[in-house]
Formats: sequence, structure tokens, C-alpha cells
Amino acid sequence: MEATFRALSEHGYSDLRMRDIGDEMELTRQVIHYHFDGKYDLMSSFLEYVIDQYEGSVAVDAGADLRTELDARVEQCLFGPEFEEFSHWDRMKVYHELYAHAQNDERHRELFNEHYERIRGSIVEVVEDGIDEGVFREVDPELVGQLITDAIHAARGRRISLGHDDAPEQARRAVDEYIVESLLADRETTDD
Amino acid sequence: MEATFRALSEHGYSDLRMRDIGDEMELTRQVIHYHFDGKYDLMSSFLEYVIDQYEGSVAVDAGADLRTELDARVEQCLFGPEFEEFSHWDRMKVYHELYAHAQNDERHRELFNEHYERIRGSIVEVVEDGIDEGVFREVDPELVGQLITDAIHAARGRRISLGHDDAPEQARRAVDEYIVESLLADRETTDD
Repeated sequence: MEATFRALSEHGYSDLRMRDIGDEMELTRQVIHYHFDGKYDLMSSFLEYVIDQYEGSVAVDAGADLRTELDARVEQCLFGPEFEEFSHWDRMKVYHELYAHAQNDERHRELFNEHYERIRGSIVEVVEDGIDEGVFREVDPELVGQLITDAIHAARGRRISLGHDDAPEQARRAVDEYIVESLLADRETTDD
Repeated sequence: MEATFRALSEHGYSDLRMRDIGDEMELTRQVIHYHFDGKYDLMSSFLEYVIDQYEGSVAVDAGADLRTELDARVEQCLFGPEFEEFSHWDRMKVYHELYAHAQNDERHRELFNEHYERIRGSIVEVVEDGIDEGVFREVDPELVGQLITDAIHAARGRRISLGHDDAPEQARRAVDEYIVESLLADRETTDD
């Protein structure tokens, strides 16, 4: 998988050949084909690997209040996690490239949908807990969770596609100041 | 340009050959090469064409109040405009595919950046007017404009890449209910 990652970073998805992946780990194409049914199958396994690694790493302090937990989840999606061999942004570059291709690829689309569902779900859950505890006002948790997930996704994409290095930090501030802040129950006064 | 559009829709950016564009308008590659310095130059011209058409069409009722104007601009970016030959989503599919490739393409990155700047700018302007007129509270217009632009972009991308047909409508509601609503000056009570 790390070899696939290196080959993808170097060649991009459209130009990637099985041979490039073999080169990265000194294996022949035959050996790779023994384990994977072609480039398509390998890419699907690779996407699952990237997503698993990403999701497995989200850890939030159990004692934190709900606003802090929400902010921590947003930050995790925007800035981390860091692993040994490749940076968060190396991974995200590949992730966003495969995402753009998912319109033509049912299996990838399914994997991205499952992942999106889980990321949004983890945010929705915190919003729901906040409403139950009276910390947040009565909002539509699904709609808020989706809005925050979208803001995160677009900011990462802007950093990658447009070179806006400050996009993730902008998104962190904007989500905190204009979405999370407006959820707080004690800000609300009128029920109009 | 319409021939380029048809060829792009059919073959995608990575697999597009000059010959495919020629086929769409019954011209030879030689004639296209006489006008454009290769696929790259043609793609840049095409991107400018799509962006110009898109931007030129944003029209907002001059007598509308500022919240209505802001909502109208958001809707325009999410749902329209419709032109004769191709739908908004046909165009957006190509737009988002080129966007994902802009990380490797300085000229496209520049064009997307200029376009992004103008779209965000048109939203920032309305927010600034709203603050001046006391309709919106004192917020950072740049940060709010960026957040709204990001939410729009991600929702369009989700519809295209993940097949979420309701993503634009979700984004319209979420931006209105959780961002624009929280900008309203008369909702604010405490200056903490």
C-alpha cells in the first residue's frame, strides 16, 4: 500500500501503471496481479487502506466538553493525523484526486460515500449530544453536520487545487466562529 | 468551445485527444492547432470560456434587500444558470474535473483562483453592505464569504462525485439557516 501511495504521488491516478507500483517495491507486475485483479481492484484496496488509517486515528479526549470535542473533530479532519512515512497532505492529495474520479467509478463512489457518512456521522453525534445536554440550541443535526463536513472538504481541496495554504486554518476559524458559535444555546434569545 | 465541451463530457480530461475535439466539429487537428498551441492552450481557453459564461450570468434584482440578495447569489452558484445547449451540471462536471487537476497546472490554477476571488468577492460585498446598513452584525466579511463559497463548492462536488442529488438543496438550506441567519444583527444580544 505504501508503494502504491508513492507511485500515485509521483504519477497521478490517470497516468498510473501497474509497473510503476511494482517499481516502488521491487516486485514484478505478475506478483501484483496475483494479489489484485488489475489496477482498478488495487486502487479500491488502496482507497480503503487510506480511509481506514484516517478514521482509525480520530481520538478525542473523553473528558472534554461538547464544543471542545466538536472543534477537535474538525481540526483532526483539517490538519491531521500525521503518520510516519507520508504527511497528511500527501495523503489528502491522492484522496482528493480519487474523489474527483469517483463520478466515473461505482466502487470508489461507494467507498467515499461510506467514509463521508462516518465522518459526518461523528459530527452529527456531537451536535445531537449537545442538544440533549442543552449546550446547543434545537437545530437539524444532520444539516449542521453536513455543512461542517462540506466546509472541511472544500478547504482541503482549496489548499490542494488552488494552493491556498491558509485554507484549513480559515475553515477552522470560520466553522468555530460562524457555525459552532451560533449553535450555542445561551446565544439564542427570540423564538421567531 | 461547444465542441470542446462535448468532447470533454464524453472522454474526460485525462483521456481527451485533440482529435476528439476535431471529430465534434468536423475539423482536422491541423486547423485546431493553427488556433491553439496544443491541448493545454485549448483547455485554458475553454476554462476561461466556461468561467466567463458563468460569471456573466449572475443577475440579482436591484431592489432586493440584502439577505434576499445574498440568498439569490448562493442559489445562482448552486443551481444555475441554465444555457441552451448544456445544463448547469454538464458544465459543473467539467469544471470540477479540471479543478482537481489544477494542482498540477499553473495556468488553470491561476484561472480558478481569479474566478474563486470574484465569486467570493461578490458575496463579501453583500456581507459588507449588510454590516454598513446594520442588517448584519459585525463579522469578518472575508471569512464569512469564504465559508459560504466553500459550502457551495463542496455541495456541487458531492452531487457530482458522490451522486448526492439533494446536496445543493441541503447546502442552500444550511447556508441560509446556520450562516446567513446567524449574521442578522437583531438576533444578537450579548457582546461577550
